Amino acid sequence: MSAYRSHTCGQLTAEAAGTETRLSGWVHRVRDHGGVLFIDLRDHYGITQVIADSDSPAFGTLEKLRAETVIRIDGRVKLRDAALVNAKLPTGEIEVYATDVDILGASDDLPLPVFGDQDYPEETRLTYRFLDLRRETLHNNIMLRSQVVRSIRNRMWDQGFTEFQTPIITASSPEGARDFLVPSRLHPGKFYALPQAPQQFKQLIMVAGFDKYFQIAPCFRDEDPRADRSPTDFYQLDIEMSFVEQKDVFAAVQPVIQGLFEEFGKGRRVDADWPLIPYKESMLKYGSDKPDLRNPIEMQIVSEHFAGSGFAIFAKLLEQDGTEVRAIPAPKGGSRKFCDRMNKFAQEQGLPGMGYIFWRKGDDGQMEAAGPLAKNIGPERTEAIRLQLALGEGDAAFFLGGKPETFEAVAGRARNVIGSELGLSETDSFRFAWIVDFPMYEKGDEGRIDFSHNPFSMPQGGLEALNGDPLKVHAYQYDLACNGYELISGGIRNHKPEIMFKAFELAGYGKDEVEKRFGGMVKAFRYGAPPHGGCAAGIDRIVMLLADEQNIREVIMFPMNQRAEDLMMGAPSEPTNDQMRELRLRALPKE
Amino acid sequence: MSAYRSHTCGQLTAEAAGTETRLSGWVHRVRDHGGVLFIDLRDHYGITQVIADSDSPAFGTLEKLRAETVIRIDGRVKLRDAALVNAKLPTGEIEVYATDVDILGASDDLPLPVFGDQDYPEETRLTYRFLDLRRETLHNNIMLRSQVVRSIRNRMWDQGFTEFQTPIITASSPEGARDFLVPSRLHPGKFYALPQAPQQFKQLIMVAGFDKYFQIAPCFRDEDPRADRSPTDFYQLDIEMSFVEQKDVFAAVQPVIQGLFEEFGKGRRVDADWPLIPYKESMLKYGSDKPDLRNPIEMQIVSEHFAGSGFAIFAKLLEQDGTEVRAIPAPKGGSRKFCDRMNKFAQEQGLPGMGYIFWRKGDDGQMEAAGPLAKNIGPERTEAIRLQLALGEGDAAFFLGGKPETFEAVAGRARNVIGSELGLSETDSFRFAWIVDFPMYEKGDEGRIDFSHNPFSMPQGGLEALNGDPLKVHAYQYDLACNGYELISGGIRNHKPEIMFKAFELAGYGKDEVEKRFGGMVKAFRYGAPPHGGCAAGIDRIVMLLADEQNIREVIMFPMNQRAEDLMMGAPSEPTNDQMRELRLRALPKE
Repeated sequence: MSAYRSHTCGQLTAEAAGTETRLSGWVHRVRDHGGVLFIDLRDHYGITQVIADSDSPAFGTLEKLRAETVIRIDGRVKLRDAALVNAKLPTGEIEVYATDVDILGASDDLPLPVFGDQDYPEETRLTYRFLDLRRETLHNNIMLRSQVVRSIRNRMWDQGFTEFQTPIITASSPEGARDFLVPSRLHPGKFYALPQAPQQFKQLIMVAGFDKYFQIAPCFRDEDPRADRSPTDFYQLDIEMSFVEQKDVFAAVQPVIQGLFEEFGKGRRVDADWPLIPYKESMLKYGSDKPDLRNPIEMQIVSEHFAGSGFAIFAKLLEQDGTEVRAIPAPKGGSRKFCDRMNKFAQEQGLPGMGYIFWRKGDDGQMEAAGPLAKNIGPERTEAIRLQLALGEGDAAFFLGGKPETFEAVAGRARNVIGSELGLSETDSFRFAWIVDFPMYEKGDEGRIDFSHNPFSMPQGGLEALNGDPLKVHAYQYDLACNGYELISGGIRNHKPEIMFKAFELAGYGKDEVEKRFGGMVKAFRYGAPPHGGCAAGIDRIVMLLADEQNIREVIMFPMNQRAEDLMMGAPSEPTNDQMRELRLRALPKE
Repeated sequence: MSAYRSHTCGQLTAEAAGTETRLSGWVHRVRDHGGVLFIDLRDHYGITQVIADSDSPAFGTLEKLRAETVIRIDGRVKLRDAALVNAKLPTGEIEVYATDVDILGASDDLPLPVFGDQDYPEETRLTYRFLDLRRETLHNNIMLRSQVVRSIRNRMWDQGFTEFQTPIITASSPEGARDFLVPSRLHPGKFYALPQAPQQFKQLIMVAGFDKYFQIAPCFRDEDPRADRSPTDFYQLDIEMSFVEQKDVFAAVQPVIQGLFEEFGKGRRVDADWPLIPYKESMLKYGSDKPDLRNPIEMQIVSEHFAGSGFAIFAKLLEQDGTEVRAIPAPKGGSRKFCDRMNKFAQEQGLPGMGYIFWRKGDDGQMEAAGPLAKNIGPERTEAIRLQLALGEGDAAFFLGGKPETFEAVAGRARNVIGSELGLSETDSFRFAWIVDFPMYEKGDEGRIDFSHNPFSMPQGGLEALNGDPLKVHAYQYDLACNGYELISGGIRNHKPEIMFKAFELAGYGKDEVEKRFGGMVKAFRYGAPPHGGCAAGIDRIVMLLADEQNIREVIMFPMNQRAEDLMMGAPSEPTNDQMRELRLRALPKE
């Protein structure tokens, strides 16, 4: 027999009654019922109730056990009394009468209890992560993460993709964040970089003639702390395909993600209809490029009803170029109290406020439009707005005016709050959409043209389009939005050196600069590069959505804290003098 | 229809004759047979023959194509003439008559041809790795590697293991090599380390209550270059289990490795009998702790036949403590020429030489023993040796004497050469053995006691054994040897703080030092640590064995060269001043 167990703590059922067993695990809880000890013995697989009375040779040892001691017991499996059966536990029909016990691992007093669900400060939880991980929710989250990654891998293989590992100690592969650097001992004064993403390598894999690549890829970005991201390393599902257009990437990815959410969504509905929404339309309708489509509210342009109207603020605004008035319809939001609250929300978000109209039953029993705006623009315009927005009695609409970029983001957040406060948004579904046609360029602060997103994306219309107005060029660049989050980002790549140089030139990068920063890839494009494209999906975000967690540290086994420190292992730490000497480095005093 | 292809280049067979097709790929080879062009079009999946004559609208473009240009062609599938069918190609029954062509990716003149198998200098191959990877052998090796990793994962899951990812930017986890350091920007003057292996993390995962862990884990060691290892990062199959003894680990691992070698061994026989060989026995019989068991030669101690004999060198040697004479039997090695060659081999390896005896047919038709040794010790001792080694006419035996550690390694190499030169070794099989009972400690150069291998292993006999002679303590530490390579190394861990401190104390490390270097893990052991153990297997080595490659760079997609440089991406490189300023570092001039 095994030295430690004949069964796991999640295995014994009524069928085993009367047999001998050997179990090992942690002492989850001990109760002393007047000379009879009840011990919940826990391992990775479950919990089994162990009992001992003073007749048992194990009694003396068991009586003195601290919580979280690791023990091995031998005993006899017994059926529980019918009244004591615990239907919630797979092992709830039996208990094990202990005849022998051995202490395998002693435990000091615990800084953090495992039994129970009390909240503890995050610093304590991270310092004693090995205890925190024994708790049920976190244990389950980590198991879920592993199952999700496994399922992703199987689904990718089933779609004909092959996983390749790309280098980790390598050259800088800039993705807009800071690199982590690694000093080279063999080449003093030189540094490697950890990849922000395997972007260049996956493109090189396509140029090397492989076809459908994926990787659960470690990525490294030296970013300033933020609640929803890891400050050092994270994993992404990295995908690249040759000889594809945008629609081919969508067709390959949707079954993987949809299947994944069906498998692990715990019954939440998974929408199979994934609309393609142009970036501009998404910003207009949802005030976001990662819209939450569980919320049915769609904003609309209502400029015509305010142009030349008696509401002077909007009427004047609209005389300037590039301005608009947009409406957020709010079905069932037709009360002054709600409208005032939303107006205040907009003010808290930094806008002067949101005008509104709401429709109520008038004193004459007829529907009437209320609110200051309605009075200013008069009944005809008010009615035209109501008809355009398809609203009725009990509903409201909010209005924002100006250059869209000044209020779009607040409008998007107001839409979320309205949808949620009025109970309009679904809560039991995952709704996906591909956001497409992102602008290739944007105007920076000083009027300079810069890349909006990924500089490696192919401009729609190719070289010809780049010879026109850069701000009108769309990129073959796309995101997958789900429930208000960006799950995936990708693009069809620019694989032609001449288009690539032109694209960078427009953003102010000379040929030398491009050769210097992306030399390996640009060189490769000169020797027969296939059209290719792909995307990357954040593993943490997917698991957070599936586990319904808000904090990334709840879905990572050993996370850093928000100051990028590992409290359990004590990282980062001072190097030794020998190490610094070997690397030919000196640390400067703090600034 | 897809913009790029209706079929891959490995897909069309006779069944498709008469249909229209669209293919994309690389121009592998163009032949011009008097106005008819034959183009081998290649993609990831295979090669299809495309033809065009001057009637084809595509002819003008196709005629001018450089090798490795990426093109898309439209055309009609035609059966080849029976005489031109190529049975070696899946597409060998058909060809495609091109009616349209589009150049998707142009190619400059190639620094390295893809077609053909010419050798090129490794520097060129690594600089243009994206071209080298298009070649058939390397492409197949990389695909094999991916399939092997996939199969390992599936087999581990099937055995009930769960994959977890451990941190990469973390604290030092010393495994005997140098750490790669990563300077922290947020904590100037402090450094993270990249893990040499997830050793501490996997042990913490066990302490955290998970049970059967594995990971295809990236590992980082700043080691000086060597032909058979990557100078920066590599992957290992990392395994850990709770509540196990050594035999439980063996039982879990064997089906995975055996199944893997059966799956990818290309028909080579996979031995299902994996003997357990104590370290000491392995060194004696095979002169190595990673014996090649395809070689049937087993060395033996023959001291008694030389003690007090007329062969003064050995007789004198044996008067000293700790000396032995060992024999390497060499069946069919019974010629003076062969024996002299092996004697020379030993001299080249730094020994004074190897004495030998060989048995031949004498002038009288009877077997006689030849060689100077036989004369010195006389016929009786010679015959006793022959009987002990079970040799006969036509066979030989070689002899080495002294303290075993001075000649064991050379004896092992001589055994390899003898087995291979005499054709005794199998060449079509994989032979595995677990090497067990490694010594816990060894005597260092200055007589100091030091760990022989892994300091985290549990000493056999626990605390009690550590109170005796340290040099007699065996560790629960084991290797898996296969065909002369160490495939796996592992151990049952020391999970009890008091035994751990004692074990380190014997090797000269105080309690403070242990707390400082392994604080996270030692702290965890105080709060209920289960008995646990595991192992790690080198992925590169496994793939090298399966692919029958001698150079690690033939089984890695983007390897460093032996000076730890990435020639394609240009790493390592000079950091920018901004980067150094942000990290508060200064590079010192070379020593």
